[in-house]
Amino acid sequence: MKVQGFIRFFALLRMIINNNIMIKTDILIIGAGPTGLFAVFEAGLLKLKCHILDALPQPGGQLSELYPKKPIYDIPGFPEVLAGDLVDGLMEQIKQFEPGFTLGERAETVEKQEDGTFIVTSNKGTKFHAPVIAIAGGLGSFEPRKPLIEDIEFYEDKGVKYFIKNPEKFRDKRVVIAGGGDSALDWSIFLANVASEVTLIHRRNEFRGALDSVEKVQELKSAGKIKLITPAEVIGINGAEHVESLDIEENGAHRKIECDYFIPLFGLTPKLGPIGDWGLEIEKNAIKVNNALDYQTNIPGIFAIGDVNTYPGKLKLILCGFHEATLMCQAAYSIINPGKKYVLKYTTVSGVDGFDGTRKEAPKAVVKAIV
Amino acid sequence: MKVQGFIRFFALLRMIINNNIMIKTDILIIGAGPTGLFAVFEAGLLKLKCHILDALPQPGGQLSELYPKKPIYDIPGFPEVLAGDLVDGLMEQIKQFEPGFTLGERAETVEKQEDGTFIVTSNKGTKFHAPVIAIAGGLGSFEPRKPLIEDIEFYEDKGVKYFIKNPEKFRDKRVVIAGGGDSALDWSIFLANVASEVTLIHRRNEFRGALDSVEKVQELKSAGKIKLITPAEVIGINGAEHVESLDIEENGAHRKIECDYFIPLFGLTPKLGPIGDWGLEIEKNAIKVNNALDYQTNIPGIFAIGDVNTYPGKLKLILCGFHEATLMCQAAYSIINPGKKYVLKYTTVSGVDGFDGTRKEAPKAVVKAIV
Ligand SMILES: Cc1cc2nc3c(=O)[nH]c(=O)nc-3n(C[C@H](O)[C@H](O)[C@H](O)COP(=O)(O)OP(=O)(O)OC[C@H]3O[C@@H](n4cnc5c(N)ncnc54)[C@H](O)[C@@H]3O)c2cc1C
Ligand SMILES: Cc1cc2nc3c(=O)[nH]c(=O)nc-3n(C[C@H](O)[C@H](O)[C@H](O)COP(=O)(O)OP(=O)(O)OC[C@H]3O[C@@H](n4cnc5c(N)ncnc54)[C@H](O)[C@@H]3O)c2cc1C
Repeated sequence: MKVQGFIRFFALLRMIINNNIMIKTDILIIGAGPTGLFAVFEAGLLKLKCHILDALPQPGGQLSELYPKKPIYDIPGFPEVLAGDLVDGLMEQIKQFEPGFTLGERAETVEKQEDGTFIVTSNKGTKFHAPVIAIAGGLGSFEPRKPLIEDIEFYEDKGVKYFIKNPEKFRDKRVVIAGGGDSALDWSIFLANVASEVTLIHRRNEFRGALDSVEKVQELKSAGKIKLITPAEVIGINGAEHVESLDIEENGAHRKIECDYFIPLFGLTPKLGPIGDWGLEIEKNAIKVNNALDYQTNIPGIFAIGDVNTYPGKLKLILCGFHEATLMCQAAYSIINPGKKYVLKYTTVSGVDGFDGTRKEAPKAVVKAIV
Repeated sequence: MKVQGFIRFFALLRMIINNNIMIKTDILIIGAGPTGLFAVFEAGLLKLKCHILDALPQPGGQLSELYPKKPIYDIPGFPEVLAGDLVDGLMEQIKQFEPGFTLGERAETVEKQEDGTFIVTSNKGTKFHAPVIAIAGGLGSFEPRKPLIEDIEFYEDKGVKYFIKNPEKFRDKRVVIAGGGDSALDWSIFLANVASEVTLIHRRNEFRGALDSVEKVQELKSAGKIKLITPAEVIGINGAEHVESLDIEENGAHRKIECDYFIPLFGLTPKLGPIGDWGLEIEKNAIKVNNALDYQTNIPGIFAIGDVNTYPGKLKLILCGFHEATLMCQAAYSIINPGKKYVLKYTTVSGVDGFDGTRKEAPKAVVKAIV
């Protein structure tokens, strides 16, 4: 237990260091789903800087996490677009406004300052200071469904991973993935070329996923590049400071397999979580906003846009989040620039000036004699 | 004048025939701009049929008429899209819902029926019968700026054209175009290969337009395919039943040129027009709507969406029209299906069933054992 004591000490040290990190921005956006991403663009047009905080390791919200390879048919102007491609388009669109990203951290607490600004603190102790907060938290922060294994919490950060943030971490390591859906299949395929050993464990024989993913795993299994153990379950984790082996129950029999990492991919459940305690009016697990004006909550300066809000007639659709983000930014502008009036400009007419010095603009008309 | 009497008689006859045309639909959409077009899609998801009426000869509203070749930067998911391409995308997206189009006619009057439905009549006498009207009229119906030439009204429909609906009409004819902007340049270029003779008249020597259009006209002029008369003005029209020649003032001198068609392209001005007299609450030349709910006007069953409406915080942006159209369709559904409750379905999950029998859907997941 001496080792664990040391580890706890370093975790504490890290908290203290993080506590000193204070990220300042004009609009703190909680949630990197399509709504939060597009808000960066509209804010940028108004010369407002944004920082985005998301609990997931990648931007895109539900689109990236739940259905990246599925087509969406109701995004205006796209007869069909893959969810992942829409996220890529949004990332490209906002690039010029250089949003800050803090990924893999959850917004935990908010404190209103005397000057009316806010300080939000993440679960890892990072602090964000902004005059305006836009909660674009969707259905909530995605929390992994954890398998019921004793001591699993102890191994989190020590070989147990519910998300894959940086696949390089697994290079030449022995990895065990558990799960029977698209994530388990797709990460097994991906890591087959990275890890030294990939074992996929599922409690049924049947997997449920895109046809080509299932076929690819079949192929890699036949080629000996993925080991398959089904029907089976991981029932125990061993190792002093780090995962060293797993206890497996396969067809009633028990055995042990050695590995460096255990990645249970049993899906995610969204939880409104700590934001539910910020003093915001909540209705049907969503945040009530003033849709007759600017999607502000009952706390002035805090807005809620996209799936996370509710109002009469609310539809939880991507295109609605875009509109809400746009109107919200106008209100944020008035808060940040009191007394100043913003006159709407068309991007086609005025162009777009990025914070990175780039400028997009329509080719100019010429005035020219024809002789 | 006997001839003119005849012509008037036939015009009257046509009115009477048109009067018998009654187009029935679920939602009559006035305005084929991006807002009106996208409304067809959202209505289609709810199994509601739409008919679109527009004063212009082509769909797309301001985008097609004013800036088809210019890039827009603030359509969510498109870092850049040409206005004309966005319209094409929308037309492709709604195709499966088979909207009816009546183009080149202006909505003139509305009558509420005893059963709560509406009959709208166009300036050409066509009648539309629907339980719901969605006014997506933008800045109003586009009316051509007409040159101040005596009797020009007499020649409308007899050789004077402010819009080009079907360029084939000009095949092997002698055409005079007047104007100095993009429309005049682009139609001169286009018709150079269709008409037997194209003359472009402008009151200045300088044209104002896209560089490549100006250069192309220069080229066609040098090749003798376009005649240019500048600085000059058309000051008179001659012909008994049809345009036969034009009187021109060029540098103070007068001359006559023979031709079959005269096309003055001096731009368009949008006019709210007759809709302004429908008893709708008007504010700042726009129609007031209930943005806290469903973008309905003060007349139940009549909605106003897109640029044509106003409410606190309104932004005249394309993406806002998309949202407004979407919420409006839900309210239309309740009016058309009283008592029925619609449960929102994701297009990704439920697919899209076209009225033309086509079906779009995401590839299904398989459930399959790996052996
Ligand atoms: C299978 C499926 C199919 C769908 N199909 C369609 C469709 O066809 N058309 C359509 O319009 N919509 C569809 N949707 C809905 C669409 O995905 C949502 O409307 C959209 O994702 C909402 O975007 P958002 O940005 O508001 O929230 P989200 O995409 O949910 O993103 C919210 C983000 O906020 C983060 N977050 C939340 N709380 C916190 C916190 N406290 N700290 C840090 N981060 C936090 C979350 O981790 C998440 O990444 C579908 C949804 C699903 C699940
Ligand atoms: C040069 C320019 C650049 C722009 N750039 C941008 C930009 O970058 N981003 C952005 O979001 N927006 C931009 N806009 C604004 C954008 O074009 C409008 O917001 C958009 O066109 C509104 O769409 P709409 O469908 O509501 O109306 P419109 O596009 O105006 O279409 C309305 C249609 O209704 C028809 N109509 C009206 N009354 C009647 C009647 N009584 N009977 C029959 N038909 C009728 C009209 O003929 C017209 O075709 C720009 C506008 C201009 C002029």
